[in-house]
Amino acid sequence: MERDFGGFKGILIIGLGLIGGSLALSLKKEGYKGKIYGYDLNESRIKKALELNAIDEGFNRLENVPWNDIDLVILSTPVKTFADIANKIKPFLKDDTVVSDVGSVKGDLVVKLYEILKPHVFVGVHPIAGTEKEGIENAVADLFKNARLILTPLGEDKEKIEKVEKLWKDIGSKTEVMDPHLHDFVFASVSHLPHAIAFALVDSLITLSKETGIDLFKYPGGGFKDFTRIAASSPTIWKDIFLENKENILHTIDVFLNSLEKLKDAIKEEDEKKILEILSESREKRLSLG
Amino acid sequence: MERDFGGFKGILIIGLGLIGGSLALSLKKEGYKGKIYGYDLNESRIKKALELNAIDEGFNRLENVPWNDIDLVILSTPVKTFADIANKIKPFLKDDTVVSDVGSVKGDLVVKLYEILKPHVFVGVHPIAGTEKEGIENAVADLFKNARLILTPLGEDKEKIEKVEKLWKDIGSKTEVMDPHLHDFVFASVSHLPHAIAFALVDSLITLSKETGIDLFKYPGGGFKDFTRIAASSPTIWKDIFLENKENILHTIDVFLNSLEKLKDAIKEEDEKKILEILSESREKRLSLG
Repeated sequence: MERDFGGFKGILIIGLGLIGGSLALSLKKEGYKGKIYGYDLNESRIKKALELNAIDEGFNRLENVPWNDIDLVILSTPVKTFADIANKIKPFLKDDTVVSDVGSVKGDLVVKLYEILKPHVFVGVHPIAGTEKEGIENAVADLFKNARLILTPLGEDKEKIEKVEKLWKDIGSKTEVMDPHLHDFVFASVSHLPHAIAFALVDSLITLSKETGIDLFKYPGGGFKDFTRIAASSPTIWKDIFLENKENILHTIDVFLNSLEKLKDAIKEEDEKKILEILSESREKRLSLG
Repeated sequence: MERDFGGFKGILIIGLGLIGGSLALSLKKEGYKGKIYGYDLNESRIKKALELNAIDEGFNRLENVPWNDIDLVILSTPVKTFADIANKIKPFLKDDTVVSDVGSVKGDLVVKLYEILKPHVFVGVHPIAGTEKEGIENAVADLFKNARLILTPLGEDKEKIEKVEKLWKDIGSKTEVMDPHLHDFVFASVSHLPHAIAFALVDSLITLSKETGIDLFKYPGGGFKDFTRIAASSPTIWKDIFLENKENILHTIDVFLNSLEKLKDAIKEEDEKKILEILSESREKRLSLG
């Protein structure tokens, strides 16, 4: 199929961070012929985006954006700002302008944005890419290439939904469609819970180091570095994700706490059979992922 | 310094698995001129070790080993078998034969082996290398190259201790000496706890999948695969480690449970300041590891 990036003529990316910047660079690199506009409150990020030739024009006031040229808006700020931004941009939007996002939380948030923005079409998008670095200075043009990407569309406008999907396919993403609430449960389990655990693990090693006077961070062998890599992710982004997906995350943490307590009890009771059972089942499942 | 591998003329490796096999291959590759003998209960492992040219001769009965040619024995079986093997080989050992190991647990176990084997010298060794694969079929000749290695010697025979250290240095390991009990606390924290968590995390995803009828293992994005790689480690080896280092592991699990409960409570109460504080401190520490 022809690479037309969904046929959008002008794209406004709101929030010029790692994801927004990488999306702009990807579009440029893959040959997108339309115009890319950037909006950010921070002047220095706009400057950087222009320097990188990621965007054609940058704005830090919504009223200055050439809204008649924009037929796709992509929200790329922290998720908790989305509703506020949606309310602010709505009066400026052309009738057929589509709004989309790149946030890690969908569920109720997507329903809320859909309600705020209608009759404009809102298409929720979650690219599964790059989390532990942040900022436009770390943006790269191949961040989404071969990366999985979940669309969580609501409403009946198949044509506009497919245009958004086409844009991402044309920069190399592997797209799939998912119910927004299912998305939040799945990602609470396979991404948000592991992040909570990684942060808590480093926190517990800080506590153990203080308790004993031994700096455990001098001994980062045995898989610890790989295991806690994601604890270097942005605190602000992850605080927002934890709060926006609160109910799912609290539930998955509880189930995990039960699993760890079960293993702890088996170790305490020296129940070799039980320990082997837990470890073997987990190993088998993990190996099946390759 | 000349590469003399500590000057040992004949080395017996007891247990031809991933670590034992890789040690033999490393010695051969780096130009060790002495003889390498292998002992294993399992005939097929001996055959494989001979095929790989890892060992010169293999035995599955201790009485057949040419003990007069052996001046270093390396225990490379699961840690819980060490005491029993030490008792069995002691009558065969020449006066000056040194015994060593490659186990992940030191502490009381090393004290026990020291007591069993004296007047022979026992030198505890823990190479920080390769855990999630197992078996001699996965053995590689560069497993210990540039890998950290902890020695936990007891007793006063500096000369023999240094010979063992020299052997590992000559195959490229970065050696350091540590008190055996400190070793077990440190590795409970930076290795055994992360392994317990990884096993429990996969276990909790099995539970969540059953609970909801959604196969969460179909969605291994968002860092989950990296994070749980170590859950593919050998159940038998890790059961033994958890039991041999029980007290340290139970304590570190408790401290971790407190950290995760603290984060969970902050999410539940939507205490943004507290969440940011935990995440920021952890991120800063993690980033300092590079």
